[in-house]
Amino acid sequence: MATRSDLDLAHRLADAAGEAIRPLFRGQWSEEQKSDRTFVTEADQAAEAAMRRLIEAERSADGIIGEEYGTRNEGAGRQWVLDPIDGTTSFIAGRPIFGTLIALVQDGFPVLGIIDQPIARERWAGRMGEPTTFNGARVSAARCRYLADAVLATTTPHQFSDHEADHFMGLAKAVAERKIIYGGDCYNYGLVASGHVDIVCEAGLKLHDFAALAPIVEGAGGLMCDWRGEPLHAESAGDALAIGDPARLEDVLEAMNLA
Amino acid sequence: MATRSDLDLAHRLADAAGEAIRPLFRGQWSEEQKSDRTFVTEADQAAEAAMRRLIEAERSADGIIGEEYGTRNEGAGRQWVLDPIDGTTSFIAGRPIFGTLIALVQDGFPVLGIIDQPIARERWAGRMGEPTTFNGARVSAARCRYLADAVLATTTPHQFSDHEADHFMGLAKAVAERKIIYGGDCYNYGLVASGHVDIVCEAGLKLHDFAALAPIVEGAGGLMCDWRGEPLHAESAGDALAIGDPARLEDVLEAMNLA
Repeated sequence: MATRSDLDLAHRLADAAGEAIRPLFRGQWSEEQKSDRTFVTEADQAAEAAMRRLIEAERSADGIIGEEYGTRNEGAGRQWVLDPIDGTTSFIAGRPIFGTLIALVQDGFPVLGIIDQPIARERWAGRMGEPTTFNGARVSAARCRYLADAVLATTTPHQFSDHEADHFMGLAKAVAERKIIYGGDCYNYGLVASGHVDIVCEAGLKLHDFAALAPIVEGAGGLMCDWRGEPLHAESAGDALAIGDPARLEDVLEAMNLA
Repeated sequence: MATRSDLDLAHRLADAAGEAIRPLFRGQWSEEQKSDRTFVTEADQAAEAAMRRLIEAERSADGIIGEEYGTRNEGAGRQWVLDPIDGTTSFIAGRPIFGTLIALVQDGFPVLGIIDQPIARERWAGRMGEPTTFNGARVSAARCRYLADAVLATTTPHQFSDHEADHFMGLAKAVAERKIIYGGDCYNYGLVASGHVDIVCEAGLKLHDFAALAPIVEGAGGLMCDWRGEPLHAESAGDALAIGDPARLEDVLEAMNLA
């Protein structure tokens, strides 16, 4: 269970990560720094280190699973899952639609999540049992009666194996082609919570990619699940769906030929 | 030729379009409005009408080619080319990476361009013979010695015919997969001018999509051309490349199997 105090801490983690990331956005990097991505690593590491310091000081018994610095207190029931920069290619390319992801996972299930966009200073926060907020104001996912009207988002076609691409293309064909947006990473899931995007369909996500997203999408009235419609947890394979209107789940699985 | 006074006017056009668009971003639209896209049309029309009023008042002899309201003074040598919202799907989805495009085309060739992102209040401006600016400060495209180090952007895989997709995939294979970003429309070309993206490769663009981009990319030291390496003009077919480092043109065409 995530307490209000956990959520307060998560907000402070996001503040700290943003402080570390902002100075490194759109820097004038050398070709070499661009080539070996050292400047992204620098931003990633600075943000994760800042967050870990706070967690270690205030929740010393909790575990931490970080993209950069690995695992601490592996056996703990409560695990903070950190992805300092989700959408590194957007970060490299200077697009302010990457995000810092912070999740609290209890016994394998995400119970708290934050998506923070530190440049635009946009933040979605979700805690199980509580409405999701965007910059402090409550948001709701949108109803969507017909799949043909849905706005569908996914980060990149290259994330899918051939087999997965067939399933995705079934869904793509069921919505209007001009209503599919590419790119966006975690930011698309925030937009589901805010009611602007109806469906996100992805594969190959890791725990640190998806753990923060579920409490945000679900606290806004949406549904977050794997490609079989099952809730996401620490052992999930990494295929993921966010659906703003849960009543469309069957339509989505059918369009993907997974029903 | 575009004068400094033309550029001043173009900035005021962008201001006027932004005023019209901002109140309609992330509105709480009904399902019906979303489905028939009336709210996008509303923003598009309001922005274009505001820009046309200024041009008609201050450049009555010039032509106008607008995405929403068609052509005025068709035979004029100077044509203002307007795309009030380039990236309508990003606009619908609530992503602040769409843009207002304003171009001045002289005898078929773009000589002035603006990309304005009214939510983030980011603006690229280019005038032939003058350095490109981003929010008033001079910017430069990045050098890129090796194609394998390039950041490649394109809006959507669905824009390509099968034949075009083969050419694009040749380029995609020549750069690192993790350095390809999707989505972004006109915004990607601004990022080329600012040195964050190295290559944009697209097809099916219309005059109102590409006219504003060429002066911006070229004023920053980059190259904008069609898939044969020829300059873009009013009769171009709509395949387009923006290359931050012009020395990479041959490598790009070769990777695309077009050399």
